[in-house]
Amino acid sequence: MRASEIRELLKLVEKSNIISLAGGLPAPELLPVRELTDIVRGVVDSYGWRVLQYSPTKGVSIFLEALKEFMKSHNVHLGPEDDVIATTGSQEAIYLLARVLLDPGDIVVIEEPSYLTAIQVFRQYGVKFVAIPIDDEGMITEKLEEELKRLRREGRTPKLVYTMPSCHNPAGVTMSYERRKHLLELAESYDLLVIEDDPYSYIAFKPIGAPPLKSMDDSGRVIYVSTFSKILSPGLRLGWVAASKQLISKLEVAKQAVDLHTSTLSQYIAAEALKRGIVDEIIEKAKRVYEAKCKAMLNALETYMPEGVRWTKPVGGLFVWSWLPKGISSRRLLEVALRKGVAFVPGDAFYPCGGGENTMRLNYSFPSIEEIWEGVKRLGDAVKELL
Amino acid sequence: MRASEIRELLKLVEKSNIISLAGGLPAPELLPVRELTDIVRGVVDSYGWRVLQYSPTKGVSIFLEALKEFMKSHNVHLGPEDDVIATTGSQEAIYLLARVLLDPGDIVVIEEPSYLTAIQVFRQYGVKFVAIPIDDEGMITEKLEEELKRLRREGRTPKLVYTMPSCHNPAGVTMSYERRKHLLELAESYDLLVIEDDPYSYIAFKPIGAPPLKSMDDSGRVIYVSTFSKILSPGLRLGWVAASKQLISKLEVAKQAVDLHTSTLSQYIAAEALKRGIVDEIIEKAKRVYEAKCKAMLNALETYMPEGVRWTKPVGGLFVWSWLPKGISSRRLLEVALRKGVAFVPGDAFYPCGGGENTMRLNYSFPSIEEIWEGVKRLGDAVKELL
Repeated sequence: MRASEIRELLKLVEKSNIISLAGGLPAPELLPVRELTDIVRGVVDSYGWRVLQYSPTKGVSIFLEALKEFMKSHNVHLGPEDDVIATTGSQEAIYLLARVLLDPGDIVVIEEPSYLTAIQVFRQYGVKFVAIPIDDEGMITEKLEEELKRLRREGRTPKLVYTMPSCHNPAGVTMSYERRKHLLELAESYDLLVIEDDPYSYIAFKPIGAPPLKSMDDSGRVIYVSTFSKILSPGLRLGWVAASKQLISKLEVAKQAVDLHTSTLSQYIAAEALKRGIVDEIIEKAKRVYEAKCKAMLNALETYMPEGVRWTKPVGGLFVWSWLPKGISSRRLLEVALRKGVAFVPGDAFYPCGGGENTMRLNYSFPSIEEIWEGVKRLGDAVKELL
Repeated sequence: MRASEIRELLKLVEKSNIISLAGGLPAPELLPVRELTDIVRGVVDSYGWRVLQYSPTKGVSIFLEALKEFMKSHNVHLGPEDDVIATTGSQEAIYLLARVLLDPGDIVVIEEPSYLTAIQVFRQYGVKFVAIPIDDEGMITEKLEEELKRLRREGRTPKLVYTMPSCHNPAGVTMSYERRKHLLELAESYDLLVIEDDPYSYIAFKPIGAPPLKSMDDSGRVIYVSTFSKILSPGLRLGWVAASKQLISKLEVAKQAVDLHTSTLSQYIAAEALKRGIVDEIIEKAKRVYEAKCKAMLNALETYMPEGVRWTKPVGGLFVWSWLPKGISSRRLLEVALRKGVAFVPGDAFYPCGGGENTMRLNYSFPSIEEIWEGVKRLGDAVKELL
């Protein structure tokens, strides 16, 4: 399923009574709508017209300072040679990294499944994928090692590894400490860059059991990407990259041509929300809300799914990933499901090199708990009809 | 002078007592800082969490509708097959258009001088420029016709024309009605697309004397680009493209990979500011403020510049463009001027194919009237020292 098809699916669902487990939207009840006016008054009082004026491509300095503090307090440790740039969502971070780092024909190591729009961006830059499967402990780094050895025999080396080690989208799993160590050792041996995409670790509702790759990195190989979309608001379009000064400087030049700079107002709002502790309040609330919603989905799956259907047990994030019995196509299931009044995203879109026809991604963050139960019930009926 | 050098120059000036005629920032007194809190309260009351949530790549529909009304009321008429997309500033509009329309080796017709970051973007896509000089009536379309004939004899045709017909940046001039008609006739004969970049026509303080190219276009060739940066706030990063449905749809796909969508909050703020008439109030105020500042600069130039220095008499926009006597380099002048406490941007950066060594761009929108007089006085002293 292509991104454009998914967009059409989401538009269709929006206009109907279909329960959507297809989107990837944060819970509306977590968005700081009531605080927003007061935050804006605060930044206008403190900074006046500056909040509406052009600002530096790299970011508003008061925001960047608050962000560095925030990362530190959440165990994301930068190296002495690192710097930070504000981006228009983490989507732009990934886009700019691809633009700056990749040439057609480059090899990119990516998890299978992986984040859809990252796959899309890398594909646009004409790269070749090496897809590494994941299990309950994240990317199977033993397989990565095999692939790296095989490629070396052919005289080839990947340019970078793109990974979402904590609360993986779409798979919901988290990479273990041992695997993280192994990944970094391999990166060192084979001279690879590692993009750590980390939108979710802040709101994990169970212990992740390992620091971010960035904090374990001794040699400046890890490029850390994150976003305010799940800890403040996606509508602000505010993400960031933490990496070596040289790379940040290249991203700055690339970004200037793309959009000059990230919304000044969004950066001031985020700086103020960090200062007032609102972001950390949202994080605590998000853990409770998502834990409850995830639990509802897991219980509903347990209740309504027939034998032979499997699913992940996330420690965080917005999604449960599920496998249908072999031979059952999730695209065919979607047709039946839509008739029964529930939508989800077929999993093949998340496979960079094809496959995954029997997988699906189920979102629990946006629907209410009632909708989750009813949606999974309808989905269970659809699966039974197909079996 | 490269864009990166200009950035460094602006950083340097920011931290000193140098009067800057180098930037391109709107007048701070025009930014609706006092209205902002109330606008935000208004959109939160009306739309709740939607103002902080993800929104469609093409734009928030309530914003797009308000924008279409606004364009209509300002004489920008779309064709029946046209559509509109919101972009992260008009910078992203230009970037996405380059990404969607241009291949390496394509020929792009561009004014000489032209908008710096547009030149940069097109150059990144590996195009060849055909530079057409401008005079007091804008692009000299007779020269364009000659160039098109010459290219046709070589079996080549440009893919598109990039023009800023109203209140040109950096030259400050406006294309006459006859030239606009001629340009569109040529576009028709030679099957060219035309990008009309129009950030300034809304705030022109003298009559422009011609409708936008978009409103004169019968055959769907004109791609209209504009921005809220000069009529509301640059910090919101909110621009737009109006063009054929097919092109908008391609831009939508490209934009999804770049940044998913434009800030939801920025779009709601702009929709509300349009609805409340705040944008039209700013426009009226901007005309008065910029007319006074422009007049101050022209009077100061008349007072302090020695014989042999020429400059444009803008009908709008943010800049006066100036020619030094032949043989005087504006880069050398900048060194002297910085010593005397005034900065400007040397004009060669705005020449897509080289040249313009004796030209400079002077900004009147950001400095106060007192700073304009003092800045031009210092600049006049610097020129006299060099002569």
